[in-house]
Amino acid sequence: MLVVKAHLTKIRCIGVHFYAFHFSQPSTSHMTTTSAIGESNLSRRAQLSTDQAIGRLMAQALAHPDLISLAAGFVDNATLPLTATQDAMAELAADEAGLRRALQYDSSAGSASMRSVLAEWAYRKWDYRPSIENVILTAGSNQLLHLLSECVLDPGDIVLAAAPTYFVYMGTLNAAGVRVIGVEADDDGVQVNRIAEQLERIEQAGEAERVKAVYVVTDFDNPAGSCLSQQRRLELVELIQRWNSRHGRVLLISDCAYSELRYAGEDIPPILADHPDASNFVVEAGTFSKSFSPGIRVGWGVLPDDLVAPMLGLKSGIDFGSPHFSQALMQRAIESGRVDAHLPVIREAYFGKLKVTLSALEKHFAGIEAAHWRRPEGGLYVWLTLPEHLDASEGGPLWQAAIEAGVLYVPGHFCYPSEGAPAQCNTIRLSFGVADEKGIDQGIERLAHAVRRVASN
Amino acid sequence: MLVVKAHLTKIRCIGVHFYAFHFSQPSTSHMTTTSAIGESNLSRRAQLSTDQAIGRLMAQALAHPDLISLAAGFVDNATLPLTATQDAMAELAADEAGLRRALQYDSSAGSASMRSVLAEWAYRKWDYRPSIENVILTAGSNQLLHLLSECVLDPGDIVLAAAPTYFVYMGTLNAAGVRVIGVEADDDGVQVNRIAEQLERIEQAGEAERVKAVYVVTDFDNPAGSCLSQQRRLELVELIQRWNSRHGRVLLISDCAYSELRYAGEDIPPILADHPDASNFVVEAGTFSKSFSPGIRVGWGVLPDDLVAPMLGLKSGIDFGSPHFSQALMQRAIESGRVDAHLPVIREAYFGKLKVTLSALEKHFAGIEAAHWRRPEGGLYVWLTLPEHLDASEGGPLWQAAIEAGVLYVPGHFCYPSEGAPAQCNTIRLSFGVADEKGIDQGIERLAHAVRRVASN
Repeated sequence: MLVVKAHLTKIRCIGVHFYAFHFSQPSTSHMTTTSAIGESNLSRRAQLSTDQAIGRLMAQALAHPDLISLAAGFVDNATLPLTATQDAMAELAADEAGLRRALQYDSSAGSASMRSVLAEWAYRKWDYRPSIENVILTAGSNQLLHLLSECVLDPGDIVLAAAPTYFVYMGTLNAAGVRVIGVEADDDGVQVNRIAEQLERIEQAGEAERVKAVYVVTDFDNPAGSCLSQQRRLELVELIQRWNSRHGRVLLISDCAYSELRYAGEDIPPILADHPDASNFVVEAGTFSKSFSPGIRVGWGVLPDDLVAPMLGLKSGIDFGSPHFSQALMQRAIESGRVDAHLPVIREAYFGKLKVTLSALEKHFAGIEAAHWRRPEGGLYVWLTLPEHLDASEGGPLWQAAIEAGVLYVPGHFCYPSEGAPAQCNTIRLSFGVADEKGIDQGIERLAHAVRRVASN
Repeated sequence: MLVVKAHLTKIRCIGVHFYAFHFSQPSTSHMTTTSAIGESNLSRRAQLSTDQAIGRLMAQALAHPDLISLAAGFVDNATLPLTATQDAMAELAADEAGLRRALQYDSSAGSASMRSVLAEWAYRKWDYRPSIENVILTAGSNQLLHLLSECVLDPGDIVLAAAPTYFVYMGTLNAAGVRVIGVEADDDGVQVNRIAEQLERIEQAGEAERVKAVYVVTDFDNPAGSCLSQQRRLELVELIQRWNSRHGRVLLISDCAYSELRYAGEDIPPILADHPDASNFVVEAGTFSKSFSPGIRVGWGVLPDDLVAPMLGLKSGIDFGSPHFSQALMQRAIESGRVDAHLPVIREAYFGKLKVTLSALEKHFAGIEAAHWRRPEGGLYVWLTLPEHLDASEGGPLWQAAIEAGVLYVPGHFCYPSEGAPAQCNTIRLSFGVADEKGIDQGIERLAHAVRRVASN
């Protein structure tokens, strides 16, 4: 996935716009409909998603076991809900009828009781509860995003997203031949007036009907750590409502993966909670992977009425519904209040690590001219911008220097769409999920050292 | 999924060949690249997979709660491994380090320890153990099949399969714009000489390079209950080896979903066990959904070397690996010997139900001229063929009569590919998985009653 993107943005970094593959112009593609014998045993999709940037990154980590990883997006092992899970397991094991149901197939949408508990839980504090008919359970929110892409996007379609944006989803879109157009973002998330400008440009180019979705990670987004402000959520809904009244429907995909991970500041309601009238075009994607356990892996989507049947049609062909045992276990954990009780534990742990990250940046990056970083109020990431001339790309001088200094990061350019707002190659995603506080401080010290070394050359 | 198929085969039943959608001829398609505003909010793929045959079938079941379902492919509630699961849960809960690992992400390929245990388990009796590097864990074998399609098949590509074949996978292929060509099958499974003839026809038509896979359900296949003989497995491997030496690679997809459900006769080794030299083109797909629990849902694939990286690339974009907790639980159940201990329980229960099914057919269908059925040695299905003039299609006179009599079945024509060997509309898939012995007997009695009523008209 990642790789294509990496390739594209690397090329864009030197000022050339190059699109590897447009289905709309098959004759210019390097892949023909009937590929030559032996040329490749892979589908077009797989050919677009098999380069090994993440693989290379992991290989670096393996080759240098002493590296501190500020790259991995894993959650903190220390925050995993051992006791809560043990209790939920014991309860499920003791309930023979419930266990029997957990061991059997369920519907493609997932267990009705879990969907009901989820609707109750997720929307308790917002005074907004979706119909469980509109809720579909998936293996993490990522599977929801993938299914949704399968369901509504064709090659050549357009999705607008923040620049930078969640690179795994962008990789999925790229592999499906979808064009992702990046829109400038700041501390308050993606800039809605820039989305409006972009839409206007697309309209003038006669491509309005190819725009199918606007994708936003609403809270503490991966990679930039920003949170879409309440005002912008309103503006975005209004903008898309206006657009949809003139054109075919554009979906607003609201990825809430990190919504529960707020450590400071005031909660901002999810888009559907504040704008229930937008339920015919808003899709909300949520998950317990970050807030409880990525191993149990229960995600969900709230879908517009008319997407429910087609999404379930696709899902039943793929897996007949996500593992029901996981849903039953997660349901127990929510119903018993254990998930709610666990959230403060997670938040406190991550808040501590966020503060260490920010302090370490202040301490070790002091005096590095023009280096600056976002100060998120939640999530797992801090977005670092280096002096403009400093290329943080994979394989570049800083990348090498950082590995030599013993620290691994995610180059920011991985996270930029190939069209729209240009990639900033002097950016870095720092994750404070996995490393402990000492490791974070040390990793950032090493990174600053590498930056100084490269900047002085 | 099902629906498109249903639609296609229904049309073929009256003798007209009609392909709803060929990417190779986009101009003749009813869907254009940029669809008209408001025409559809769905992708081409979703448009090919959203008709509601299964939905209609389930609606029938809901509208008539007194119906006996010989349609559902669920496993028997009574055979679910309650105690084995309770024990595995208790063990996992007591192992703090193991539980912590189960709650965290793992690799996209799935837990290495589970893959190792699986390789050991699955191949113990065959003296053949695949490298765990070639094993990938999925949410049921269905997800493996879907991923594989994504990875190697483009619209317009060709897959050969038995006629009839597993309709859910065929639906997935149809939705991806892949052509499925049906090949005649008998009690020993798909006829390899017919595959050879079909390949020759395709070669002569200049389409050799579009053939990408031959799909077989090796043991007690869904829907026909037949088992591919050892001799045919050998012939098939040799045929594909010859083909591959002349053309690009054709994969042999061996779906082993029901391999553990043999109740009589001698085991036949899986293709890879007997033909390890074919590992560069054979894919094996297995699952514990039928042999242990479809709720825990752990499936796997054994892949040729060169497909591992691209499959993992796609999988990481979709879900970063299937739920690890399920894998950890399943691993405990295998390691402790509980899966092996549970298999005889399942086999005995299903064997009893198979015998009831066959007796009921003999008793209630006695005197119905030309009605005959396969006598499988395992699995969950019996394939029933009615007098030739009797159309068992959904919505037809027998279908209606059966519902009025209080029984639900899967029309056989759902299971026929749209090309190749013609659909037999006088066929029925009977499943004895869900109903109890009394229900099976009564359901078949009702079905025979309906057949007599319609045949006499």
